[in-house]
Amino acid sequence: MTSPRLTLTGLNELTASSFVAALGEVFEHAAWVPEAAAVGRPYPTVTALHDAMMRAVRQAPADRQASFIGGHPELGSRFKRADLTRESQSEQGGLGLDRLSAEEFDRFTRLNAAYREKFGFPFIVCVRRHTRDSILRQFEKRLGNDAEAERAAALHEIGLITRLRIVEAVDGPGKPATTGRLSTHVLDTLSGRPAPGVKITLHEIGASARGLLKETTTNADGRTDAPLIGGEPLRIGTYELSFHIGGYFAGLKQATAADPAFLDVVPIRFAIAEPEGHYHVPLLATPWSYTTYRGS
Amino acid sequence: MTSPRLTLTGLNELTASSFVAALGEVFEHAAWVPEAAAVGRPYPTVTALHDAMMRAVRQAPADRQASFIGGHPELGSRFKRADLTRESQSEQGGLGLDRLSAEEFDRFTRLNAAYREKFGFPFIVCVRRHTRDSILRQFEKRLGNDAEAERAAALHEIGLITRLRIVEAVDGPGKPATTGRLSTHVLDTLSGRPAPGVKITLHEIGASARGLLKETTTNADGRTDAPLIGGEPLRIGTYELSFHIGGYFAGLKQATAADPAFLDVVPIRFAIAEPEGHYHVPLLATPWSYTTYRGS
Amino acid sequence: MTSPRLTLTGLNELTASSFVAALGEVFEHAAWVPEAAAVGRPYPTVTALHDAMMRAVRQAPADRQASFIGGHPELGSRFKRADLTRESQSEQGGLGLDRLSAEEFDRFTRLNAAYREKFGFPFIVCVRRHTRDSILRQFEKRLGNDAEAERAAALHEIGLITRLRIVEAVDGPGKPATTGRLSTHVLDTLSGRPAPGVKITLHEIGASARGLLKETTTNADGRTDAPLIGGEPLRIGTYELSFHIGGYFAGLKQATAADPAFLDVVPIRFAIAEPEGHYHVPLLATPWSYTTYRGS
Amino acid sequence: MTSPRLTLTGLNELTASSFVAALGEVFEHAAWVPEAAAVGRPYPTVTALHDAMMRAVRQAPADRQASFIGGHPELGSRFKRADLTRESQSEQGGLGLDRLSAEEFDRFTRLNAAYREKFGFPFIVCVRRHTRDSILRQFEKRLGNDAEAERAAALHEIGLITRLRIVEAVDGPGKPATTGRLSTHVLDTLSGRPAPGVKITLHEIGASARGLLKETTTNADGRTDAPLIGGEPLRIGTYELSFHIGGYFAGLKQATAADPAFLDVVPIRFAIAEPEGHYHVPLLATPWSYTTYRGS
Repeated sequence: MTSPRLTLTGLNELTASSFVAALGEVFEHAAWVPEAAAVGRPYPTVTALHDAMMRAVRQAPADRQASFIGGHPELGSRFKRADLTRESQSEQGGLGLDRLSAEEFDRFTRLNAAYREKFGFPFIVCVRRHTRDSILRQFEKRLGNDAEAERAAALHEIGLITRLRIVEAVDGPGKPATTGRLSTHVLDTLSGRPAPGVKITLHEIGASARGLLKETTTNADGRTDAPLIGGEPLRIGTYELSFHIGGYFAGLKQATAADPAFLDVVPIRFAIAEPEGHYHVPLLATPWSYTTYRGS
Repeated sequence: MTSPRLTLTGLNELTASSFVAALGEVFEHAAWVPEAAAVGRPYPTVTALHDAMMRAVRQAPADRQASFIGGHPELGSRFKRADLTRESQSEQGGLGLDRLSAEEFDRFTRLNAAYREKFGFPFIVCVRRHTRDSILRQFEKRLGNDAEAERAAALHEIGLITRLRIVEAVDGPGKPATTGRLSTHVLDTLSGRPAPGVKITLHEIGASARGLLKETTTNADGRTDAPLIGGEPLRIGTYELSFHIGGYFAGLKQATAADPAFLDVVPIRFAIAEPEGHYHVPLLATPWSYTTYRGS
Repeated sequence: MTSPRLTLTGLNELTASSFVAALGEVFEHAAWVPEAAAVGRPYPTVTALHDAMMRAVRQAPADRQASFIGGHPELGSRFKRADLTRESQSEQGGLGLDRLSAEEFDRFTRLNAAYREKFGFPFIVCVRRHTRDSILRQFEKRLGNDAEAERAAALHEIGLITRLRIVEAVDGPGKPATTGRLSTHVLDTLSGRPAPGVKITLHEIGASARGLLKETTTNADGRTDAPLIGGEPLRIGTYELSFHIGGYFAGLKQATAADPAFLDVVPIRFAIAEPEGHYHVPLLATPWSYTTYRGS
Repeated sequence: MTSPRLTLTGLNELTASSFVAALGEVFEHAAWVPEAAAVGRPYPTVTALHDAMMRAVRQAPADRQASFIGGHPELGSRFKRADLTRESQSEQGGLGLDRLSAEEFDRFTRLNAAYREKFGFPFIVCVRRHTRDSILRQFEKRLGNDAEAERAAALHEIGLITRLRIVEAVDGPGKPATTGRLSTHVLDTLSGRPAPGVKITLHEIGASARGLLKETTTNADGRTDAPLIGGEPLRIGTYELSFHIGGYFAGLKQATAADPAFLDVVPIRFAIAEPEGHYHVPLLATPWSYTTYRGS
């Protein structure tokens, strides 16, 4: 996350034109938005400032609002197809829109055309809150909306996009929650204590590929030094944590031997639905059993 | 499993030469084995009959035993390489020796040559008790043996191979245990009852590919009508059960909604080490948590 | 359970008067009930026979039905007070109506008088399906009914009482389910196998006392040779299973020592609500953790 | 815990005689202990100060050490018998030595006499680290020691007693750990979130009585605002947490109804063996299942 260049106090005190200039990147090509918001100053919180700008958008005359929505960039320009080799199925990092399978590329292209045809404006979604599978699902679902519902959906997404921008641009009290957290914890219930030194990997599980998001090892507390994901929105989608407990238990004297060990790598597959939520996904394990749950 | 053509009672009463002929296929090209066993009749159990034949093998003069071992077919002739396409990574059925990746094929070929070079006889293993990953592991491990230990290992495997043959050829009391069982059970701890209608798949997980062994659905008891594997030895190796609980819980009124659901497909990966054992691998689940264990 | 003296086939073939005499004890002092049922013979199932008798009761003229209900013995005559000593708080066997605490005795007496006053007939309940706490709860709840609902409740209980009698008196196809089952199973998830030799006690937990219903030990399968309760209705009420796992784990080499052991006696308290249900209440344990659930 | 009157810095700078006077209550009637420690100043940590004083005790001439040990008060003077009424079996607060059952009183009295007879000095134990059951167990175990081992045991306990005193009297860096912590956490795995508003009680479970140590309710985080026990040593002994989850689940729409509820009060009985340890004993529950473990 880049560190904010502006402060709420500063913004509250600027001249109207400087205020508009300072927030120009938040609502691109729509200076009328900060202009409308300038008059409501001072704002006590960053949230209140953002709410005021979104109110301006929502209350704008229909043609101005329509042209504002219509001026958003085409999501379609970000789609790219990748040749599917074995390697591409297990990528480093998250799965982007720029390495779609042929089938996914065709689906996105078809959806994009159908959407534009039906609504007359480009599909708008806060990409940073989604995996590409989740964008696809949203796309299909929203294509079923009527014009009015879809206009509301587009505005909602614009709110999410600009909320992220404003939080990154402006420091001050009352910032809206825009980040989520994914954490874990490994408990060895064979010996009744946290399990240190357990290798953990986190993958994004897409329909056509897996992406390696993180590889780490538990510390003396059975936790990871940093959250698995933090400081940004969690992307709605499916994930898999793999806990390499076989090696851990093999190193303990009291573990019962079996060759190969009954449990070696424990995969836990789960979905994230709340980008700003806290997902704690712990593992309680013995060499022969385990329990997991969404914790807090 | 083919149904036995012979009975122990019948074998006990045959003339020696008919006895030898009847059991000719159990120890191939070694009529002297049943000949030696014929004199010890009657045998009270199938196990006793098999033990007598293995005793004959173990007590045979060194050169006869060596030529017997040496006469076994080369495992190497069963290796085949398959071009790795995406499809071949997820096969129907178990992963055989005839569709190895290039790397695996090279490893097997190297091991085979090194083994023959070191011991002067072919690598013998009871293939029906192993996955190909496990054969590879055995191969590497046994290559480290000294000649005496390896001769014993080969005889042990011959015992396992012929035990399977005799159990399938002869009916009678006191048959040795040659089959294992893998079963499961899904319990819905949200509503305190077995979960019916849950789709389950079972895969063999190999180093280079996955093979689909079974696809089934839980019955009203939360169990499967037939064991996932039964009536044959379990193959030593790694497996993955996938429980499609997302659909199950979506169908229940009392489940808390999240979209996408926190748990949809629950993968449980485990190893089988005892081909004649019973592995019960149940799932106790809510939409937000689950527990699994090796049960009984 | 006493073994039936009669068979359905026999009853179907008796003369009407012998039929009435044979079933005389099922509906006491109401020969008109089997008389009405005699004409509907032959009955294909024991359930059909019982249904026919209950139909006769339900369709009887109001005054005959009222005098039939009114003729039932007073439950009140079974209440007895016991002086509360320390020993009486932990009795052998279930907690009966004949050893109530002073407070319970007063409550029952008050309820009995109020019930008789309000409805004009005695409180009827199938005592064999209830603990005394549950009878008390029923008593209070039913006292709130209006006359019509309570008449229906009394008939329902008469159905349950006579169903038990007929099942015990008559052998034949299609017997209604009148028995429940409580079972358990101890799994040692430290070593991945059933835990043998674990001492288990089962208590009924009453408001004023505990009664020891069973003391047993797990067999090689981690189960008990016989169900904890079986062959009779389960009594609605609260129970506590105590699993003495401390001694079990102390006997295993691989258990991590702590003195005193973190878990020694594990109490599991639960309620039974379905007298004819199957309650499987297993324990999955390590020296430092456990899981229990209503299984099947 | 009383707040310290002294600081390590202050003690390091006092005259020898003021130092001795200031620490007079830590080693009662043994001014020679702080006298010996005074010369080693300055001490960098509170632990180093305490170690120096214990070194003085351990290195004292045999007769001085013996008279020091012998000068400790008789534990026996604290035993008192209480008439066992029903109420006394469930007391408020921990179970003290002043309300023993007749049987316990006799056992303590017998042990006290036998100990004095065998060793010639009073039984010394750091009472604040034990429940009365645990003192009794220690007493019996230590009576089996030989003279030398028991002298060492008495000195070890004096170290524990004075360590607590010094930690409470002196502020400064490097204080030894003298407090433990017991905490809990209730997770509702039916809805995948912490369970607020769950009533929890904590009892000490003694051989002859139960003592109510705490009654509290979970907060919005499913935790308790303060640890169940904290800021003092945990007493070695047996405890029972009771989680009243029946009421919690009855308040949720999605819970499956059963009357009475399968789980109402969940008792978790466990022992504490490390007075200075952290015991986290959480509950993961649905209306039909639960899991507990020693967590961290």
